[in-house]
Amino acid sequence: MYSSKQNVNILTALLVAHGIRHAVVCPGSRNSPIVHNLNECPDIECYPVTDERSAGFYALGMAQKLRRPVVVCVTSGTALLNLAPAVAEAYYQQVPLVVISADRPQEWIDQLDGQTLPQPDALGRFVRKAVTLPEPHDDDSRWYCNRLVNEALITRHGPVHINVPITEPLFDYTVLELPAERKIEWLPADISASTLSHVTRMFLQSKRPMLISGQPMNPLMDEAVMLIGDDEQYVPDFVLYIGGSVVSKRLKRFLRKAKETWVVNATGEVTDTFMNLTHVVQGDGEVVADHIHFMLITEPHPFVQMWEDLLSRVRQMSEAYKPAYSEMAAVKYFESRVGEAVVHYANSTAIRLANSFAKHPVFCNRGVNGIEGSLSTAAGCSVVADTEVYCVIGDLSFFYDQNALWNKNLRGNLRILLLNNGRGGIFNMLPGLEQSPARDAFVAAEHHTSAEGICRQNDIVYLHADGPQDFQQAIDTLLYIDSHRPVLLEVFTDADNDERVYKDYLSLFK
Amino acid sequence: MYSSKQNVNILTALLVAHGIRHAVVCPGSRNSPIVHNLNECPDIECYPVTDERSAGFYALGMAQKLRRPVVVCVTSGTALLNLAPAVAEAYYQQVPLVVISADRPQEWIDQLDGQTLPQPDALGRFVRKAVTLPEPHDDDSRWYCNRLVNEALITRHGPVHINVPITEPLFDYTVLELPAERKIEWLPADISASTLSHVTRMFLQSKRPMLISGQPMNPLMDEAVMLIGDDEQYVPDFVLYIGGSVVSKRLKRFLRKAKETWVVNATGEVTDTFMNLTHVVQGDGEVVADHIHFMLITEPHPFVQMWEDLLSRVRQMSEAYKPAYSEMAAVKYFESRVGEAVVHYANSTAIRLANSFAKHPVFCNRGVNGIEGSLSTAAGCSVVADTEVYCVIGDLSFFYDQNALWNKNLRGNLRILLLNNGRGGIFNMLPGLEQSPARDAFVAAEHHTSAEGICRQNDIVYLHADGPQDFQQAIDTLLYIDSHRPVLLEVFTDADNDERVYKDYLSLFK
Amino acid sequence: MYSSKQNVNILTALLVAHGIRHAVVCPGSRNSPIVHNLNECPDIECYPVTDERSAGFYALGMAQKLRRPVVVCVTSGTALLNLAPAVAEAYYQQVPLVVISADRPQEWIDQLDGQTLPQPDALGRFVRKAVTLPEPHDDDSRWYCNRLVNEALITRHGPVHINVPITEPLFDYTVLELPAERKIEWLPADISASTLSHVTRMFLQSKRPMLISGQPMNPLMDEAVMLIGDDEQYVPDFVLYIGGSVVSKRLKRFLRKAKETWVVNATGEVTDTFMNLTHVVQGDGEVVADHIHFMLITEPHPFVQMWEDLLSRVRQMSEAYKPAYSEMAAVKYFESRVGEAVVHYANSTAIRLANSFAKHPVFCNRGVNGIEGSLSTAAGCSVVADTEVYCVIGDLSFFYDQNALWNKNLRGNLRILLLNNGRGGIFNMLPGLEQSPARDAFVAAEHHTSAEGICRQNDIVYLHADGPQDFQQAIDTLLYIDSHRPVLLEVFTDADNDERVYKDYLSLFK
Amino acid sequence: MYSSKQNVNILTALLVAHGIRHAVVCPGSRNSPIVHNLNECPDIECYPVTDERSAGFYALGMAQKLRRPVVVCVTSGTALLNLAPAVAEAYYQQVPLVVISADRPQEWIDQLDGQTLPQPDALGRFVRKAVTLPEPHDDDSRWYCNRLVNEALITRHGPVHINVPITEPLFDYTVLELPAERKIEWLPADISASTLSHVTRMFLQSKRPMLISGQPMNPLMDEAVMLIGDDEQYVPDFVLYIGGSVVSKRLKRFLRKAKETWVVNATGEVTDTFMNLTHVVQGDGEVVADHIHFMLITEPHPFVQMWEDLLSRVRQMSEAYKPAYSEMAAVKYFESRVGEAVVHYANSTAIRLANSFAKHPVFCNRGVNGIEGSLSTAAGCSVVADTEVYCVIGDLSFFYDQNALWNKNLRGNLRILLLNNGRGGIFNMLPGLEQSPARDAFVAAEHHTSAEGICRQNDIVYLHADGPQDFQQAIDTLLYIDSHRPVLLEVFTDADNDERVYKDYLSLFK
Repeated sequence: MYSSKQNVNILTALLVAHGIRHAVVCPGSRNSPIVHNLNECPDIECYPVTDERSAGFYALGMAQKLRRPVVVCVTSGTALLNLAPAVAEAYYQQVPLVVISADRPQEWIDQLDGQTLPQPDALGRFVRKAVTLPEPHDDDSRWYCNRLVNEALITRHGPVHINVPITEPLFDYTVLELPAERKIEWLPADISASTLSHVTRMFLQSKRPMLISGQPMNPLMDEAVMLIGDDEQYVPDFVLYIGGSVVSKRLKRFLRKAKETWVVNATGEVTDTFMNLTHVVQGDGEVVADHIHFMLITEPHPFVQMWEDLLSRVRQMSEAYKPAYSEMAAVKYFESRVGEAVVHYANSTAIRLANSFAKHPVFCNRGVNGIEGSLSTAAGCSVVADTEVYCVIGDLSFFYDQNALWNKNLRGNLRILLLNNGRGGIFNMLPGLEQSPARDAFVAAEHHTSAEGICRQNDIVYLHADGPQDFQQAIDTLLYIDSHRPVLLEVFTDADNDERVYKDYLSLFK
Repeated sequence: MYSSKQNVNILTALLVAHGIRHAVVCPGSRNSPIVHNLNECPDIECYPVTDERSAGFYALGMAQKLRRPVVVCVTSGTALLNLAPAVAEAYYQQVPLVVISADRPQEWIDQLDGQTLPQPDALGRFVRKAVTLPEPHDDDSRWYCNRLVNEALITRHGPVHINVPITEPLFDYTVLELPAERKIEWLPADISASTLSHVTRMFLQSKRPMLISGQPMNPLMDEAVMLIGDDEQYVPDFVLYIGGSVVSKRLKRFLRKAKETWVVNATGEVTDTFMNLTHVVQGDGEVVADHIHFMLITEPHPFVQMWEDLLSRVRQMSEAYKPAYSEMAAVKYFESRVGEAVVHYANSTAIRLANSFAKHPVFCNRGVNGIEGSLSTAAGCSVVADTEVYCVIGDLSFFYDQNALWNKNLRGNLRILLLNNGRGGIFNMLPGLEQSPARDAFVAAEHHTSAEGICRQNDIVYLHADGPQDFQQAIDTLLYIDSHRPVLLEVFTDADNDERVYKDYLSLFK
Repeated sequence: MYSSKQNVNILTALLVAHGIRHAVVCPGSRNSPIVHNLNECPDIECYPVTDERSAGFYALGMAQKLRRPVVVCVTSGTALLNLAPAVAEAYYQQVPLVVISADRPQEWIDQLDGQTLPQPDALGRFVRKAVTLPEPHDDDSRWYCNRLVNEALITRHGPVHINVPITEPLFDYTVLELPAERKIEWLPADISASTLSHVTRMFLQSKRPMLISGQPMNPLMDEAVMLIGDDEQYVPDFVLYIGGSVVSKRLKRFLRKAKETWVVNATGEVTDTFMNLTHVVQGDGEVVADHIHFMLITEPHPFVQMWEDLLSRVRQMSEAYKPAYSEMAAVKYFESRVGEAVVHYANSTAIRLANSFAKHPVFCNRGVNGIEGSLSTAAGCSVVADTEVYCVIGDLSFFYDQNALWNKNLRGNLRILLLNNGRGGIFNMLPGLEQSPARDAFVAAEHHTSAEGICRQNDIVYLHADGPQDFQQAIDTLLYIDSHRPVLLEVFTDADNDERVYKDYLSLFK
Repeated sequence: MYSSKQNVNILTALLVAHGIRHAVVCPGSRNSPIVHNLNECPDIECYPVTDERSAGFYALGMAQKLRRPVVVCVTSGTALLNLAPAVAEAYYQQVPLVVISADRPQEWIDQLDGQTLPQPDALGRFVRKAVTLPEPHDDDSRWYCNRLVNEALITRHGPVHINVPITEPLFDYTVLELPAERKIEWLPADISASTLSHVTRMFLQSKRPMLISGQPMNPLMDEAVMLIGDDEQYVPDFVLYIGGSVVSKRLKRFLRKAKETWVVNATGEVTDTFMNLTHVVQGDGEVVADHIHFMLITEPHPFVQMWEDLLSRVRQMSEAYKPAYSEMAAVKYFESRVGEAVVHYANSTAIRLANSFAKHPVFCNRGVNGIEGSLSTAAGCSVVADTEVYCVIGDLSFFYDQNALWNKNLRGNLRILLLNNGRGGIFNMLPGLEQSPARDAFVAAEHHTSAEGICRQNDIVYLHADGPQDFQQAIDTLLYIDSHRPVLLEVFTDADNDERVYKDYLSLFK
């Protein structure tokens, strides 16, 4: 019988899954659920030691000899601090100690309630990873708890610290068996021939594999996922994710249905975007993707083909759509004319439209999705580019970053398409928000400003369009005018109308 | 109608309670529940600004002019980072900005899920206090959320940061009114005549006031609280807590029933031990206590008197009790003989027995309740003391810290009463733990060790006793022997018997 | 004979000066210079203990009993980590342990060179203050070393950590006596009658006392200090500094000649701006200043009077000066007309001119002197002010923060005087910089931009002036025009001419 | 002509060496020496931008497009904070921004001296590496400055921050050319065939290559380095260092004469132990060493052979030496008898003797060289070992860690050789220390303690020897006795005599 504490059971199950076989255990009340569990596991042998300082070195000696990780489990308070000398030694010798400390729930730290001190970072830089587990109370926190334990246990080259807050009652042992827990594995940083072919084989041998690369390369996926609705045959069983940010929330939700995801990234960090990560491969995602694309040429995969057909159908529907005058109409026309250019899209509405209508890779600040630097980023790009650099940007992003234009190095190859509908357009698209009286003035930042003044101030060629009559010609001018100074086209639209057109477009795929 | 987010509503209610009247609000989706709420409050005026960098300085200008705190509220992601310049300026000018940032739930940070970055400490040392609110799901987390907001809002002399994780759905405004929230106030660091008399007056004018000082000065309170059971007439309405650690968990639970607690401490920190703190007074708690004791002489208070009568009754019962041979018998006899001496008690069983039988202030490491240094602490005390210094200590604490005796400066005034029952005695007292097979060997650290060897090694005079026949005489020897070297008396008892005696004693008060 | 290590000697001298009398010393090679010194001091008694964990508690026991600080001195490496349990206990009991650790020089940390680990913050939050001393090699680093030791030793309510890097050779004991070191004292946070009168008495009884308050209240001091040149009779012996930032570098250099400075501030922090601080008084500087001003009415002080006469003379010279058309002419005229208004000055040239010509307190972001938020700060002020709010600002600051004008709440009481000479004017005033070819384009950010466009964009009333003919009338218009929208006057001047006028003005005082 | 600031010139030289070609520069006075230098470099193009927030994104746009690092250089104060949004975006996009900020010297931070704020960690977790350069005043600080710049510039997958304190005067441009600076390169984490053969080829093609592995595998090197004295023909030109701690200081000093060192380690960290590192190869050092050893079989290298001959000669001299009764005699005899066993050596004297006489790999806590856990480490090893585990340990280490014996899991395969000479023996070997009156009592921790008591306490078989007559037989007993409990042999020697013998031995090699 195991403890009734969920985080303790998740921890125990994953210790076993990751092959831990030895645990040095120190006496205590708060850590007794963990010690109890370790003692219950047939695969783990416990070694009791009372002085934690000695216990730490004792575990170090075991791990050195065994050349595998050894747990040392202590109770809350200074017990943990007594481990610091052994942990520092293990850090510099790169010995894999797994320090597990019981803790009071965090809300009681520093409330003079006995044996509480700030434990989460108490071992400082002497551990390669320190995590504090939640006490799960819903699915998200269970997932988080699982992920944190996995993150600690896949860390290499030194000690790690798993801090486990445990709320009273402590002494309840009523759980019949440990939960089945998702294990995350880590493949080291060499895209050698063998790892590469291992990952590729996993992909090709899966029944329903899917390769996902984030921004800026998954256009029309939002529409595709809408279109398939609940059709389970499109759900992948194996997702290979080579990093970058996925713009579509609908796509992310969809991919959470997959059985497992493997991530390939340069830093080897755990990024569990789809909540079903099982393998992290440190390496160059593009190399892997290229290899898979190459293999698919000679060895086509029916599931991959089915998705390509789907996307092709979506693209036809999207291209055939004729939007009324709006931001969408402007972007769609722009993209139909611009060809294989360097285009920066700002966040919010602009990048959403790109995801439907761009036919080439785009730049966008999707690292943290800020609106404060999109124009500056495009400007920086333009000074080192040989060709035209376009920036498609909404009004809030534009005015926020208008200092981008206060710059002597700018040249005529910078071309800006400003979509001005007088507010943060994205806020019209958030269902429920319309019920807040604060929406227009305080949340969406409604305003009545034009870029004409700032263009004059900085000697930028200013164009504008405000209706179905003139916008296409204005876009053509933006694309083809000869100018040694930057050119800006401001397209004025109506926010409510923009919203209607966008919803009309999406209704195609329902 | 307010947002359905509990932490947002607790925050809003406390902003109003603490007198906030102005809020600069920046656009965003994640922070829209907060902005919505601020806009709903009739007492708060909102000022929308889109560029957060400018918004920060805008709020700074308002707060400078008003000489009172002003909120600046931003959405998640880099929005917060844009405030850093204004916050740094406010820090060095000591202007009270209240930065409020919306955040993703922490489990999503660094999972490549859009606009997430580590916000809790993002403003670094430029805020005097930074808190991240929980999303409450039970009473403890609601209490914690309330406390954190209060901690931020009572911070003086500069900006503070309140980070608010908000889980989707974001746009639900169905709460009719803000919760009634406990407000914590802060009285500045001058025990001037006026503050002193203010606090004293509060105490004396309360109907049921109670003065609590922590370790080492609340003996027999555990027994007293047992004795009164559910008798509500003993429950105080006003607790004045002058700091130090309260040993008895039962007493702490009892004091949580009081209406409010005022804390007096030197650092002005919030320590909400009884979960009902309403005022923190930075100052010297002993000065306040002395003043109240002085006032009570001329102005006795019936409730205080009632408690004194109760404690006097408890003391009689306790003194009259005749324990069978056990740790308790040893400590009770020791205390009956030692008089007004300097006594260090180790943690765990030793200090629990002191709380019942010591008749004088004692020393004990109750800061963090460690067992690793009790003997060393007593040893250090003895080398600067003119009189005998006693140390009463259990076996685990003793052997853990036996290096305390490896010290050339020790003299004959150090006298040690070692209570050896072969394990951590406290673990026999924890109901439920007996069902774990791990208890004796792994949790309670059962052992068979005597101190004779270590005493010989360090030239310590060694005495021992192991039964009802000889322990009293041995204790007398420990007290009165003339020695230029430290003296140790090891009293051997049986752990199960110790447990029975302790339970028998407690049954007096049920 | 003392060690030849300067930081060790400074430390030892200050330990004695601050009244330390007991030191627990642990064996080691790296810390032997410190232990040697402690043993040499007749006032300090050393207690050797080998196990550092025990040594920490041993020192705790001594400090508890003595109720005064006790040193515990350890060598480099994990020796320090062994103290953590005792330090945590001391932290929560608020016992004054002074932890002193020897360290390797920082350049050797993490270079696999034996017994090195990151010590400076190794005790984490369990010390109230942690400092790492430099190994002094010039006057500034000696001053810094002294200050850091003082900062640690005046910290109250818990343990502190002094980390001492020591370069080899370690074993050289050739210094005859400890250096005479400046001691900084700390007066606690109560401006009670007695502290107030103590500080006031110190001031009035000094031979040459001087009261300094920082920005925005020491106009013309720069000129005054120029005028007196090397005249020693104006040098104060006692400076009372009530905080805020001093703009004039010349004044700061001058005040470094004083014998000592006392600082009064709300947070009790050490701010040793004049490098001669001896006392920190936690309290409200304005209360102290008011009290001294009040006392000076009935009890005038000849030195204070002499300075007032000097400043009066300087003011006459300054007022009599007639600048040619320039930024200075604009500000001087503006100040002659504006009276007792709320005026915000931006950093750089603007605040420097205010320091010569403003006749009233001004606002300025002197916390960290940024140029990115001056206009926003003034804007924020204006929305909560009943009267006009003026902002005098240079071109770089203005364009940097032009988003301040993108704000729907602004009203006609915001009036901006923009001084545009096409670059960062301050950079013309830095002797030597003119030799860098990078100056104009890269350091001073030369540009050709006018505010007209941004004013149009944001519906701001735009005025401009560009010569001696029209600027006075334009300033009058700025002051007196009736407008419900903000008004901006842009005064164009020539940067080289501005520089000439400023130098001409300063030559008056040479 | 370049700036006269050494750290600025080292930085500039290394920027060029690491191939930086583009720098976005922001105006300012404190950073003008850096901007000046960048503008002087023919290889670097400067782009001025005034608003630092925009400048950050501008640089991001350039680096994205170029796919190579771009500098953004700002002045001190909030200028740096304005970069935070772009740096966060770069972090999550893994774009290589090189942020360079000028700073005030650290002693002026928080002293209210204008535009100072804590810059070193101001960009928090949004940079992959942050370094603050020293202002060099000697060779060590110049070396340190060089290393820090290199560490920043070899960091991959995101932005880095180089903070540059610059003392006034700022405007002096008198240096004719940039210094020649050592460049450190970084080879990524794949010991693929090509990297492996590259490193091996570098080794074999060097004229004087040397392979160094740290503890526990470079015995007799100390003696060898003594023996060769100033003979330059033994100095390597290429050192391949595969990690681990080098015990001998003399060897480390010797290796600093080599032209360059390449390090191979698992974490890819810079460890510049010999101050001449030029390449860091992330990988498995043992694989590299094995490969080289394998290649040397077929392709012997004369320099490697010369060193092997030298070491062989040293070993003969060492083996032939007959020490008088002492710690050395005990260890030498022990090693002559123990064969290929598992032996743990404690730090200090014990490991020094092992370095002369052990003929097999040993265990020793050389990560941070602590003395607090050697016995526990050996004890932990013994419980998972099939064979005898020996622990050779001095008195201070032994008594410090005697709780290692308080452990129920110990078995008869743990055998301890305790060298007790009544103090920390290493302190007798430190020239100069003997002049401190504090040496014996306070630095070397002289004591008179025997292990007999603690052995009795913990049921350890206790043996002892105290003279030339019996120690060899006692060691044989320790080795061969049959016991189900641990066995300890305490060899008593005289500290002064131990010192004499050790010096006599060393004199062989002078």
